[in-house]
Amino acid sequence: MSHSVKDIATALGAQAFGAVDLLIERVSEPGHAKQGDLALATNPKYAEDLSNGHARVALLWEGADWQALGLKAAIIPSRPRYAMSALTRMMDPGQGTDAGIHPTSVIDPTAQIAADVSIGPFTVIGARAVIGAGSLIGAQCFVGADVTLGANAFLREQVSIGARAQIGDRFIAQPGARIGGDGFSFVTAEKSGIEAVRESLGSQDDTDGQPYARIHSLGAVQIGHDVEIGANATIDNGTIRDTVIGDGCKFDNMAQVGHNVVMGRDCLICGHVAIAGSARVGNNVVLGGMTGISDNIFIGDRVITGGATKVLSNVPAGRVMLGYPATQMDKQVETYKSIRRLPRLLRDVADLKKAVFKTPSND
Amino acid sequence: MSHSVKDIATALGAQAFGAVDLLIERVSEPGHAKQGDLALATNPKYAEDLSNGHARVALLWEGADWQALGLKAAIIPSRPRYAMSALTRMMDPGQGTDAGIHPTSVIDPTAQIAADVSIGPFTVIGARAVIGAGSLIGAQCFVGADVTLGANAFLREQVSIGARAQIGDRFIAQPGARIGGDGFSFVTAEKSGIEAVRESLGSQDDTDGQPYARIHSLGAVQIGHDVEIGANATIDNGTIRDTVIGDGCKFDNMAQVGHNVVMGRDCLICGHVAIAGSARVGNNVVLGGMTGISDNIFIGDRVITGGATKVLSNVPAGRVMLGYPATQMDKQVETYKSIRRLPRLLRDVADLKKAVFKTPSND
Amino acid sequence: MSHSVKDIATALGAQAFGAVDLLIERVSEPGHAKQGDLALATNPKYAEDLSNGHARVALLWEGADWQALGLKAAIIPSRPRYAMSALTRMMDPGQGTDAGIHPTSVIDPTAQIAADVSIGPFTVIGARAVIGAGSLIGAQCFVGADVTLGANAFLREQVSIGARAQIGDRFIAQPGARIGGDGFSFVTAEKSGIEAVRESLGSQDDTDGQPYARIHSLGAVQIGHDVEIGANATIDNGTIRDTVIGDGCKFDNMAQVGHNVVMGRDCLICGHVAIAGSARVGNNVVLGGMTGISDNIFIGDRVITGGATKVLSNVPAGRVMLGYPATQMDKQVETYKSIRRLPRLLRDVADLKKAVFKTPSND
Repeated sequence: MSHSVKDIATALGAQAFGAVDLLIERVSEPGHAKQGDLALATNPKYAEDLSNGHARVALLWEGADWQALGLKAAIIPSRPRYAMSALTRMMDPGQGTDAGIHPTSVIDPTAQIAADVSIGPFTVIGARAVIGAGSLIGAQCFVGADVTLGANAFLREQVSIGARAQIGDRFIAQPGARIGGDGFSFVTAEKSGIEAVRESLGSQDDTDGQPYARIHSLGAVQIGHDVEIGANATIDNGTIRDTVIGDGCKFDNMAQVGHNVVMGRDCLICGHVAIAGSARVGNNVVLGGMTGISDNIFIGDRVITGGATKVLSNVPAGRVMLGYPATQMDKQVETYKSIRRLPRLLRDVADLKKAVFKTPSND
Repeated sequence: MSHSVKDIATALGAQAFGAVDLLIERVSEPGHAKQGDLALATNPKYAEDLSNGHARVALLWEGADWQALGLKAAIIPSRPRYAMSALTRMMDPGQGTDAGIHPTSVIDPTAQIAADVSIGPFTVIGARAVIGAGSLIGAQCFVGADVTLGANAFLREQVSIGARAQIGDRFIAQPGARIGGDGFSFVTAEKSGIEAVRESLGSQDDTDGQPYARIHSLGAVQIGHDVEIGANATIDNGTIRDTVIGDGCKFDNMAQVGHNVVMGRDCLICGHVAIAGSARVGNNVVLGGMTGISDNIFIGDRVITGGATKVLSNVPAGRVMLGYPATQMDKQVETYKSIRRLPRLLRDVADLKKAVFKTPSND
Repeated sequence: MSHSVKDIATALGAQAFGAVDLLIERVSEPGHAKQGDLALATNPKYAEDLSNGHARVALLWEGADWQALGLKAAIIPSRPRYAMSALTRMMDPGQGTDAGIHPTSVIDPTAQIAADVSIGPFTVIGARAVIGAGSLIGAQCFVGADVTLGANAFLREQVSIGARAQIGDRFIAQPGARIGGDGFSFVTAEKSGIEAVRESLGSQDDTDGQPYARIHSLGAVQIGHDVEIGANATIDNGTIRDTVIGDGCKFDNMAQVGHNVVMGRDCLICGHVAIAGSARVGNNVVLGGMTGISDNIFIGDRVITGGATKVLSNVPAGRVMLGYPATQMDKQVETYKSIRRLPRLLRDVADLKKAVFKTPSND
C-alpha cells in the first residue's frame, strides 16, 4: 500500500517537489500527520495546522511555498479536490476480502462467473446469472436468476439484486443496497379515494374503503456503467418495461427509485431522496438530501434541488429549485425573507386599517 | 408461462375478441410489442403507438375498435387499471426460486414447516416458528423464535422477522424488510430537555445533559392478512403490548412504523413514510410519500395525505391533508398561492403607508 | 423469567407493598392484566382500566392507594417512566438466540473472540476482528476485518460492520443496521454546477454535464460506549479521518450519518433523520423524526429539533428549532399562525387600496 511521492504525483497528474522518493503509507489531516503520512492541505487555511503537526510531506494548494512550510517534499495538483479521487483510490486499504470463490457460497451451476471473480461467504448466485471479469462480490450477497453484472463490479456485504436486472461495468453497491424489489403499485376494483382526490384536488368520495389488488412487476431494472448505489438504498422493478438508470449515476444511502423511473446519465442523488414511480429524470441532475420527486413528473437536464426540496410538478432543464412545494431557489429565498416579515406586515395593516377606516383593530 | 387470449380474458373477467386461441407469452408496451406479446393500450392515447408497433394482440380501452387498429385479437376489460392486477399476477415470471427446503438452511427442530413450503439457501428459522402452507421463503431470510407466518407467505431475499411476530396469510415482504426491531424508547433519570420543551413549546431547562436509559420492547408485532412490506421498510415491536397492522395494509420501501402503533385495515403507506411511536391510524388511510406522523396522535379513517405532508396533530376521518405542518389540502393550496403573492403585498403595504402616513417606506 | 414483586421493586429502587412474594411473569396493560402479570398503571387515568381488569399486582403512580384499587401487591417508584427501563430490562424475553458459536459461522482464524461470546448461524467475522466479552452476535451478521467491538455488544440479525470500525462497550444494533459504508463523495474534473450554485445561490453555469469521479473513504467509523443503532440505519466511513459518534448516542430506524460527521455524547436521533457529511453535532442534541442537517454545519450542545425540521445553517447551543428552513420553535409557531392569516390580510389590503387610492382591486 506504500507509494513514492513521485508515483502519487504522476497518478494525480500533479507536480512533485523535494524528496520525491519518500514513501507514503497513509493520508492524514495536517494536524495529525506523522512520518509516512501525506498531509492534505488543499487550502491556505491549513498552513497553521501543518506547521503545528509533524508532516514531512503534504499535498498543497496551488502556489503554496512548500519549503517555507518546512516540508521535505510536496505534491501540488491543479485542482486539489479532483486530485482527491485518484489519491484516495490509490490509498484505499479496501475491505480485506479474500480473493477467490468462498467454499460456502451457493452458485447455480448455470451461472457464468468470469475467471478472476471473488465471491464472499454465504453469497448466493442464481440460475443463468452472469458476473463480469474482475468483480468482487462481498459476503452474504444475493444475485438473482438471469442477472447480468458487468466487469469490475464491487458489491459490499449483504447487497441483493433481484431476478433479471441488467447492470453495466464498474457497478458499486454499498451494504444492504436493494436492486429489483417489486414496484409499489396497487389498484382498487372501483375508483378509489386517491383517484377522486387527484381529480378534485381536495375532496374524496365518501365511499367505503376498498381492499387493494396488487399489480406485479413484470419488468426488471436496467443500470448503465459506472453507477454506485448507497447503503440500504432501493431501486424497484418496472411494471411492464424496466426501470432505467443511466451511466454514471450515483445514489447515496437510503435513496429510493420507484418503478418505471427513467433516469439519464451522471445524476447525483443524495441521501434519503425518494423518486416516485414513473418519474423521468434527465442528465446531470443533482437532487439534494431528502428531496422528493412526485410520481409521473419530468425533471429536465441539469436541474439542481436544494436539501429537502419536494418537487410536485415538472421542472424544465437547468432550473435550481428549493422548498416545499419546490420553486426556483432565488424566488424561494425571497419568499422565506417575506415570510419572516409577516408579523410586522400584520401590524402595519392593522395600523393602516385603524387610520383609514377609523375602526379599532379586532384581530 | 404462456396463456391463450381466451384464458387471460376469463381470468380478467373481460371480453375477448378475434383469434382468442393465440398464445401470449409476455406483456409489453404498445410501441414495443412483438409476436407473442399482449400490448397494453388501456387508453386511446396509445392508439398511435399501437399502429406504429408490431402488436397482434392488445388489451384495449372500453369502446376501442380492435379491428380498425389492425389487431388479430383483443381483450377489453371494463376497468383496465384493475385488470392489470389479475393480468400481471398471471404473467409474473417470479424470482426463479427453487422449490423445496434448501439444504444449507438452518431450521430449528421445533419449528413447524408445512409440507409445501420452499425455503432458500442460508435462511434461518427459529425455535417454535410456524410457517404456513404454500409459503415461499427466499434466500438469507431470518424468521425468529415463536414467529407465526400464515399461509402463502412470500418473503424475498434477506428479510428478517424478529421473535414472537404473528403474521396472517398471504404476507409479502420485499428484500431487506425488517419486522420486529426493538422500539426507539429511552428515558432519563430526571426530567429531560425534551419533556421540558413539550410542556413549554419552545424553551428547555438549561440543565446538564443526562444519559439515556433504554426501555426494552416486551411486545412484538401483529400483522393481519394480505399485508405487504416494501424493501428495507421497518416495523418495530411494541413496548408492553404489540404493534398492530390491520388486514390489507401495504407499505412501500423504507416506510417505518414505530412501536405501539395501531393501524386499521387497507391502508396504503408510500415510500419513506415515518409513523412515530404510539400513533393510531384508522382504516383506508393513504399516506403519500415522505409523509411523517407524529407520535401519539390519531389519524381517522379514510384520511389521505399528499406527498411530504408532516402531520403534527390529530386528523379527523375523511380529511385530505397537505403541507408542513399539515392542513387541509384545499386550504394549503390557497396558502401556497397567498405566499406567492407576498412580495407584491409587501410593496402594496409600503405604498399604502406612504400614502396614508406620508412617511417614506423604510423597509 | 419470573421475579418476585420484592425483587422487582429492589431492582427499580421502588417501594413494594402487600404480598411481595407473588411471582411476576409478564408486564401488561391494566385492562389486559391476568394472574402472573404486573399491570402498568403509571398514572391515575389508568385506575378505571385497573378496576375493570383482573390485575392482582400493579406498578402504580406515586401516592396511589393500592389497597383501594383491590390489588394484592403493588410497586410504587418515584419516577415511573424511568422505572420502565430497569423493569423492561428484567422482563425482556430476548430473541431466543442459542448460546455459543454456531457451527455454520465463518470466523477468520486471526479474529479474537472472547470466551463467552455467542455468534449466530451464517455470521462472518473478518481477519483480526476483536469481539468483546459477553457479546451476542445474531444470525447472518457481518463483522469486517480489523473491527473492534467492545464488551457486551448485542447485534440483531443481518447487521453489518465494515472494516476498521472501532466500537465501544454495550453497543446495540437493530436488524439491518449498516456501519461503515463508504461516504458519498464525488468530484468533477472542472467546477461543477453544484459548486456554481453554492457560490451564486441560484444560478449555475450552463456548461455541459461532467461525469463524477469517486472519492474513496480512507477513514472508518469510531463509536463510543452505550450507543444504539436502529433497524436499517447507516453510519458512513470518514474520508481521511474517521466519522465519530460519542458515548451514549441513540439512533432510531433509518437514521443516516454521513462521512466525517463528529457527534458528541448522549444525542437522541429519531427515525429517518439524515445528518449530511462533515456536520458537527454537540452533546445532548435531540433531532426529531425526519430532521435533516446540511453538510458542513455545526449544531451546538442541547439543541432540540421538532419533527421534520430541516437545518440549513449553524445552530447555537441550547436552541429549540422547527420548520423548513429551521428557525427557533417559538418564532416558527408565530410564523405558522401569521401564514394562516394571509388570505384575510390579502383581502384587507385590497380594501385599503380601494379606500386610499380609489381604484378597484384588480387582484
